[in-house]
Amino acid sequence: MVAILVQPMPTEPTPLIASDDHLAHDGLIEVVAGREVPCYESPQRATAIRDALLGTGDYALDAPRDHGPDPITAVHELELLDLIEHAWTDAMAAGRDPDRPLLPDTFLLHGYAGSMALTQLPARRHDRLGAYCFDTGTPIVAGTATAARAAVDIALTAADRVLAGAPLAYGLCRPPGHHAGRTLIGGYCYFNNAAIVAQSLVDRGAQRVAILDVDFHHGNGTQQLFWERGDVLYVSLHGDPAGIYPYYSGFATERGAGPGEGVTRNLPLAPGTDGDGYLAALAEGLDAVRAFDPDAPLVISLGFDTYHADPIGNLALQTDDYGRMGSAIAGLGTSVIALQEGGYAVEALGANAVAFLGALAGSSSS
Amino acid sequence: MVAILVQPMPTEPTPLIASDDHLAHDGLIEVVAGREVPCYESPQRATAIRDALLGTGDYALDAPRDHGPDPITAVHELELLDLIEHAWTDAMAAGRDPDRPLLPDTFLLHGYAGSMALTQLPARRHDRLGAYCFDTGTPIVAGTATAARAAVDIALTAADRVLAGAPLAYGLCRPPGHHAGRTLIGGYCYFNNAAIVAQSLVDRGAQRVAILDVDFHHGNGTQQLFWERGDVLYVSLHGDPAGIYPYYSGFATERGAGPGEGVTRNLPLAPGTDGDGYLAALAEGLDAVRAFDPDAPLVISLGFDTYHADPIGNLALQTDDYGRMGSAIAGLGTSVIALQEGGYAVEALGANAVAFLGALAGSSSS
Repeated sequence: MVAILVQPMPTEPTPLIASDDHLAHDGLIEVVAGREVPCYESPQRATAIRDALLGTGDYALDAPRDHGPDPITAVHELELLDLIEHAWTDAMAAGRDPDRPLLPDTFLLHGYAGSMALTQLPARRHDRLGAYCFDTGTPIVAGTATAARAAVDIALTAADRVLAGAPLAYGLCRPPGHHAGRTLIGGYCYFNNAAIVAQSLVDRGAQRVAILDVDFHHGNGTQQLFWERGDVLYVSLHGDPAGIYPYYSGFATERGAGPGEGVTRNLPLAPGTDGDGYLAALAEGLDAVRAFDPDAPLVISLGFDTYHADPIGNLALQTDDYGRMGSAIAGLGTSVIALQEGGYAVEALGANAVAFLGALAGSSSS
Repeated sequence: MVAILVQPMPTEPTPLIASDDHLAHDGLIEVVAGREVPCYESPQRATAIRDALLGTGDYALDAPRDHGPDPITAVHELELLDLIEHAWTDAMAAGRDPDRPLLPDTFLLHGYAGSMALTQLPARRHDRLGAYCFDTGTPIVAGTATAARAAVDIALTAADRVLAGAPLAYGLCRPPGHHAGRTLIGGYCYFNNAAIVAQSLVDRGAQRVAILDVDFHHGNGTQQLFWERGDVLYVSLHGDPAGIYPYYSGFATERGAGPGEGVTRNLPLAPGTDGDGYLAALAEGLDAVRAFDPDAPLVISLGFDTYHADPIGNLALQTDDYGRMGSAIAGLGTSVIALQEGGYAVEALGANAVAFLGALAGSSSS
């Protein structure tokens, strides 16, 4: 399948919501299968995307507006916010090395309790990190809470701009969010930016909100948060979890429950899937969005870790394919809140963002 | 409190059940708070204890008898046995580095699913290790299954010897077991040797079996397995989980449920607790055992990580204190199946084992 890209210049610059607050969060390391490696989720990712987008002249940089903690606790439990905001200071008070990020080593597994009624958690927040964090790749440092709060404000500000009339706004969220659940952090994610935006759209009157997740990884957090909800559609394209993070969810058989039955749609992709294969799955996902008939802007969880050279992905997309994706999504004819999730091939992130958002904006305004 | 140690020579040598099969399991590394360190749970531990005990002339070394998998699956789910027996070969077939132990990095946390119905696990066992293993300190290598199976046979053979008339038998189990639950491994533990023995005593007709756990860490696996059971008492003395592994259980408020209500007894100890403090708590634990009135040999989960120089403990016991503990337990006047759990100050393990078991055997036979 070859798409002819139509990319007229947008009539107005697209809002690019970003903040340097993300620089406060540099996880430095993560642990993969017991081995310490430099953290793939780096500050350079956001800088590369911002610079590339601004270089086109088609984006208007704007700062996020503080939305306070309420939109976060509309989606996450207060104890999770508390953990992220205070784990570092607890660890420093306990004499932990200030040059090492906090990474959990002992996890409150689903099979830990069995029938046991567990009565309490350790008093110091860093001692209970493994009750909330499901991997060894989600470091907490001194500035994590600042950056994660800013990412939420970026996402909500992008939503504000679209609700105020922009056909497209892009929130350069860092850290990303789609692996974070009600009491869960993981996969470089602390607060679920996309879920917080979707919930805020519902809270502002929307009856049907659709989230399209094109990150390489299954957005287990987003799926969990809306699993039983009929008002928020979650459609995700991702590497087959049979052998890929987050491993435990994202199979096609997972379709929601109760009022949310059928309102979760997973499209796992085989290793090596290229642009044509991806676009075919995307068309299926977009059909699901159309059938759902949202009455609010589309929320996109946007990852570029589907790129062929991504260091932790296994798909085979090229930069041009992101333009094809943008055009296909633009075909919905809806306004879009695009929020950054993953993507770790830093050298290609800018070009991929320009291709995707340019096609989306161009067609949106055509 | 100062106890006068009475240590007459035992009339017969104490059975020491051990096997070199444990040498097949050398985890090499573990990850503590994101940092790779040499695994504290080393083959040298068992060798040191065996050599010291044999050096006294008071022990008769004997090999374990193969008891097959049934006693294991009487306590653990078959899927856990399958995981431990095949995770390594799956990983090798997938091209993993044969010189690196398997350590999970992505965990099926209690909060992962929320209300989601998870439908499947990854096909390759090493990809689903984090659905069963709750920490980054429980490496799986080529020989792990062999060693873990041998440890179970050692424990069961020690039980056989006591049931056949020995007042005391010591099972030099390695790897240890008390952190392993129904579908759970962790804390260097794969199969719960002590729980398997307790269950086998029940299966052989006992109505009330008591397990006394004097390892430094809470035996969360043992507690979980017998939480709702009125026929197996679990009494544990351990470092306060408020700041100590395994963090999520072992608080004094946990006392069992249903028919097991009050049949779990946790005695957490403050950092720095010395021999006198320990013996006071032990007296309380022994009162609970007496009140339960077991009709089977006492099962002891024996750890020496309460020792003042243990690299991962925080209590302050001296070698003499292990003699005091042995004497106090001997005061129950019951036969004893003592099974090795933790203890990582390798240079002191032999002396501590000699002190504990010598006092226990001496008084038992007096």
